[in-house]
Amino acid sequence: MVSKKFLLALVFYCFVSSLQAQKGYDLWLQYEKIENEEIKKKYLRDLNILKIYGENATLDAAREELILAYKGFFGEEFQEADILSKNALVIGVQEDLPLNIRTAVKKELAEINEEGYIIKNISAGNFPVTLITGKTSAGLLYGTFRFIKEIQLRNDLSSIAIHSSPKIQKRVLNHWDNLDGTVERGYAGFSIWDWHHLPQLIKPEYIDYARANASIGINGTVLTNVNANSLVLTPHYIEKVKALAEVFRPYGIQVYLTARFSAPMESGDLETADPLVPEVRRWWKEKADEIYTEIPDFGGFLVKANSEGQPGPNNYGRSHVDGANMLAEAVAPHGGIIMWRAFVYSEHDPEDRAKQAYSEFVPFDGQFHDNVLVQVKNGPIDFQPREPFHPMFGAMPQTPLMMEFQITQEYLGFSSHLVFLPKMFEETLDEDTFVEGEGSTVAKVIDGTLANKNLTGMAGVANIGTAKNWTGHPFGQANWYGFGRLAWDPYLDSGKIAEEWLKMTFSREPAFVDPMTRVLMDSRETVVNYMTPLGLHHIMATGHHYGPGPWVDDLGRPEWNPVYYHQADSLGVGFDRTASGSNALSQYAQSIREQYGSLDRVPEKHLLWFHRVPWDYEMKNGKTLWYNLAAKYQQGVEEVQEMARTWKNMEQYVDEERFTKTAMLLEIQQKEAKWWRDAVLLYFQQFSGMELPRFVPKPEHKLEYYKSLEFPYAPGI
Amino acid sequence: MVSKKFLLALVFYCFVSSLQAQKGYDLWLQYEKIENEEIKKKYLRDLNILKIYGENATLDAAREELILAYKGFFGEEFQEADILSKNALVIGVQEDLPLNIRTAVKKELAEINEEGYIIKNISAGNFPVTLITGKTSAGLLYGTFRFIKEIQLRNDLSSIAIHSSPKIQKRVLNHWDNLDGTVERGYAGFSIWDWHHLPQLIKPEYIDYARANASIGINGTVLTNVNANSLVLTPHYIEKVKALAEVFRPYGIQVYLTARFSAPMESGDLETADPLVPEVRRWWKEKADEIYTEIPDFGGFLVKANSEGQPGPNNYGRSHVDGANMLAEAVAPHGGIIMWRAFVYSEHDPEDRAKQAYSEFVPFDGQFHDNVLVQVKNGPIDFQPREPFHPMFGAMPQTPLMMEFQITQEYLGFSSHLVFLPKMFEETLDEDTFVEGEGSTVAKVIDGTLANKNLTGMAGVANIGTAKNWTGHPFGQANWYGFGRLAWDPYLDSGKIAEEWLKMTFSREPAFVDPMTRVLMDSRETVVNYMTPLGLHHIMATGHHYGPGPWVDDLGRPEWNPVYYHQADSLGVGFDRTASGSNALSQYAQSIREQYGSLDRVPEKHLLWFHRVPWDYEMKNGKTLWYNLAAKYQQGVEEVQEMARTWKNMEQYVDEERFTKTAMLLEIQQKEAKWWRDAVLLYFQQFSGMELPRFVPKPEHKLEYYKSLEFPYAPGI
Repeated sequence: MVSKKFLLALVFYCFVSSLQAQKGYDLWLQYEKIENEEIKKKYLRDLNILKIYGENATLDAAREELILAYKGFFGEEFQEADILSKNALVIGVQEDLPLNIRTAVKKELAEINEEGYIIKNISAGNFPVTLITGKTSAGLLYGTFRFIKEIQLRNDLSSIAIHSSPKIQKRVLNHWDNLDGTVERGYAGFSIWDWHHLPQLIKPEYIDYARANASIGINGTVLTNVNANSLVLTPHYIEKVKALAEVFRPYGIQVYLTARFSAPMESGDLETADPLVPEVRRWWKEKADEIYTEIPDFGGFLVKANSEGQPGPNNYGRSHVDGANMLAEAVAPHGGIIMWRAFVYSEHDPEDRAKQAYSEFVPFDGQFHDNVLVQVKNGPIDFQPREPFHPMFGAMPQTPLMMEFQITQEYLGFSSHLVFLPKMFEETLDEDTFVEGEGSTVAKVIDGTLANKNLTGMAGVANIGTAKNWTGHPFGQANWYGFGRLAWDPYLDSGKIAEEWLKMTFSREPAFVDPMTRVLMDSRETVVNYMTPLGLHHIMATGHHYGPGPWVDDLGRPEWNPVYYHQADSLGVGFDRTASGSNALSQYAQSIREQYGSLDRVPEKHLLWFHRVPWDYEMKNGKTLWYNLAAKYQQGVEEVQEMARTWKNMEQYVDEERFTKTAMLLEIQQKEAKWWRDAVLLYFQQFSGMELPRFVPKPEHKLEYYKSLEFPYAPGI
Repeated sequence: MVSKKFLLALVFYCFVSSLQAQKGYDLWLQYEKIENEEIKKKYLRDLNILKIYGENATLDAAREELILAYKGFFGEEFQEADILSKNALVIGVQEDLPLNIRTAVKKELAEINEEGYIIKNISAGNFPVTLITGKTSAGLLYGTFRFIKEIQLRNDLSSIAIHSSPKIQKRVLNHWDNLDGTVERGYAGFSIWDWHHLPQLIKPEYIDYARANASIGINGTVLTNVNANSLVLTPHYIEKVKALAEVFRPYGIQVYLTARFSAPMESGDLETADPLVPEVRRWWKEKADEIYTEIPDFGGFLVKANSEGQPGPNNYGRSHVDGANMLAEAVAPHGGIIMWRAFVYSEHDPEDRAKQAYSEFVPFDGQFHDNVLVQVKNGPIDFQPREPFHPMFGAMPQTPLMMEFQITQEYLGFSSHLVFLPKMFEETLDEDTFVEGEGSTVAKVIDGTLANKNLTGMAGVANIGTAKNWTGHPFGQANWYGFGRLAWDPYLDSGKIAEEWLKMTFSREPAFVDPMTRVLMDSRETVVNYMTPLGLHHIMATGHHYGPGPWVDDLGRPEWNPVYYHQADSLGVGFDRTASGSNALSQYAQSIREQYGSLDRVPEKHLLWFHRVPWDYEMKNGKTLWYNLAAKYQQGVEEVQEMARTWKNMEQYVDEERFTKTAMLLEIQQKEAKWWRDAVLLYFQQFSGMELPRFVPKPEHKLEYYKSLEFPYAPGI
């Protein structure tokens, strides 16, 4: 017999899917019909006709987006005018505008940068028009998407006056996509790049990907995995990359590739890749010339060198500076940049892994060429549910540092868990490095204002795949969206991002937006609670990182073992990174050293990151560490249950397909949160020897059961 | 600058995709609004109200499908009645119908089988109603889809009288899907089975997959690759399989799994998998019991044993009969079946590979248990563009033989080439084996009528993946559809299948249907022409089989090398399978032996399959073999060009997304057809030493270029 659950699923899905699958695909660019006649009329009055000044592919994209949105909102064609008239929507870049119109936004034009935009209701002689402009077509396109968003949010247009510029220059997605179509740490299907059919087959997804990115201001995409394959640098593949670049160009998006350091030997026929050997330098220069001949606006290279087995300059006794500068010289004549990753650590270095990148890179400050960005992960380990900010931020005043966030949820429940990452990104961006006194936030390091940088960037490791809704989890889209918004403005409030994303994607009803904003905003703390509370980190199962594996101690490299990170035994738990331990704290500014170094003053969220603490250590609430640890895990589980309950009440505001899928995924999240709680507490209980608090339910299985679980085909590797 | 081509793609795609992506997803189940008011009114008169007798999940599925279709065609809700009234559409299985209604179709009920259906306009007392019925709910569901199809085709309903029964019992898709999400020989993305999120996450695709299959009468699906993984037999996975089975059950679809023969050692803890060892037999029996406890209608196992490295009974000195019968005994108490593949050949056997399966299996005739089907590929080698029928058909009168067709185009251009396979399937089904005299067609072997078989089946290796339109190429859907239709009735005309698929999927306009039916019907001969004309076979590149590789001669197993199959040298080309050669011909009936054995009488399409012929051999048209070979390759190229030209004229009948995608793929097909022609002719020219006919353009590159091409990431492995 069919279970009730499946019949329900059947009823939910079967006959809505034909109509609603599209909603997931359309992301936050939902241009639904405005049913309220009054509101509609009001908008239509201000959108009497479309007047475009100028002509190019980006303007075409802006035009088509406006026509699409207009048709969606109002069910009609947006008419285009030859001459300017009353209540027109006017678009054009600064230099193409008639003088009187340009003059009306003179002040704003002086305030925006090359990629900024202005939207303003102005008087054009004797009648009002709404103007969208910028200094470049890219800026104008961003303004167009912003304008459409204003309607999505049902904001008033009649006296609109907005101007905005991106605070960061290189706003880039990193795709860890392999040439065989798999995606490393990808949980949303295959790679969206259909390399096999490129350059001939241009999938509609490529264009919709570009639209989505342009709508949030993303202006670059690294197509290939940082664990790189030099084949992508051969002519056969450059032709394919060129085809993608041509699709993305009108949307202001540059393509980048990852450069495998040993490419001169693999894709070329040199016998070395030593960056100081002239033939190697020439090879890269010629390779860059070859690429730029095909793709004049090619962005440059992203490089993972001497990290986790990738080749790099160290193989030849050379430094990261030698390697990065060689590549920088190759792309410099074409205006390209090098994004050189600082994610390095060595199994031969007995030093605390959290310290190694800083130790290796900080001495190079000031030695990189101008067109090199050093790309630093948000924390010193590896995209954990919570890490303190990376100590390199603020420590290299003469080097442009690029932020690397991970949008794909490698350590945060894959595409199965609802976790709103902008809240986490914001936490890092808001952290104070204190390097130039109080207020020296990570955001100010990244946007270049703290040390007056000319080159700035933010990268997000994409969570995008061939899944019909791009990201697998319907709420994974919020993390792509939120990354883009924070790359545009790292000072944005994540709560505002949550709110606008919910409104654009699902519903503007307060009875939906208010509780769901709370769900999003709480969701990150929740995942920390049920996975790694109180500063625990890297206790996921091995390799795929699916589920708990705090017991893993048999991997070849010590720093790949969870036991390395929690150091639990009968005496206590936690990694002593104070002066009495690895002294990783010494890499931070004085005031942080003092605060975090003190057991009393360290924020409890970072406790076990910096301190090794006995199980019966008394915490601020007067309870033991063990009690608090157990309480956090239990709290995490209960919070997921609460999320699921809230979602159940949202049914009337959401289409059935996305509603049902999210409900099912919340079931998985509840199950996995319990699994985390039970497995980790049972494991640590061996050492603490203490009873679980009464409010924690007895685990369903014995520890041995959890240790026996194997998932050879967990996704994402 | 953006090239014109990409701007075109942009204009085509960008702003239609939001509306039209769904069309690809909806397959042939397009229920578009009927715009002609007269036609609409006529249909509505006969569909006054819906009256359903009985209640179960399959009836629910039929109801929902009718409501969906009604809403699509007429834009209204199909109202359901409590009591019977005039012009009602009545659905119900035989036993649930009121006596007077049942009596009205008494004659038809006697003529259909358990899965058959009846659609008939009858008189219910004093008013007319339209009845859809069958002996089982599955039959009723098939009838429902047939009824909807009648409207899709705009056939008259007013005096409808149709009844139909499947001629083959087990109509099964074989998914070569791995547990890691990849699909062997899959060219449409990842596996649609999201094992990681099962059993909790039920994707809408599962239900739409079931709808599509039910609509063409497919009643079984083998979820896993024949190169099997025993992990799927563990409880963790059985739970997942159960979830899929529950989704598919209402649609009359049974799930099957592939059984890895060594599972008792891998998934169990036995030290042998010897089928005569009692513990092994018991292990399989208990495993079957375990599965059937969870999935009472589990279909059974498909087994690839002692083939291409897969384990099997031969490993223990046992026979295929020993292996198959052991498994058959395990599933027999539950009504399960075993599908045992005959695709065996050994690198240690110097015998012609084409002969080996016959040699190994035919002696076992009559020894398999009643619930074993021996599954035989359509030809004796491996899913080539053209093969003669497999000599096993007709050679095992006491053994039910199941046809294995390949829907995924492993050797026919992947998902890039438009090739209508039902035409190829039909060719095999129509072949005369002559074993019981003239008219002993393969279809009659398969449907059991030739030797009175109680168990019959047809399998199709699926071309389905996570691609947004399921199959990658929009026309790949026709091959899924056509397979289902031929499994229902192996005597169907492939031209009729092409026509109905085109009408349901795209347009009923004769100006579209007529030329496109010709395109479909010619497309198979075209791919034969540009890949392997005149009986050539297996000259594809190695491993991935992407593109030509007639020169490959260095693989470990002799029969994996293309040179094994074409045997070209300066004296000639072709595989002598007559009495002077391997005598594979001896496996066929006398009249075939005589015809094919004669150089004069062998059909030219099979010439080089059976004969080794000098390059200057004079063919029927008075020209040399070399001339004819070149002409065929050239013809293939020109035919693809013609297909593309025809398609260009179809723009007005097709939505832009599918139009543009198909146009781009036809570009790829043209390019690859030329590549085939140039590479193969240059290669054979080395041996023939003869000039190319003037009408063949000079190849763009030298032979060495074609030999140097490598595609390490060609899809599908």
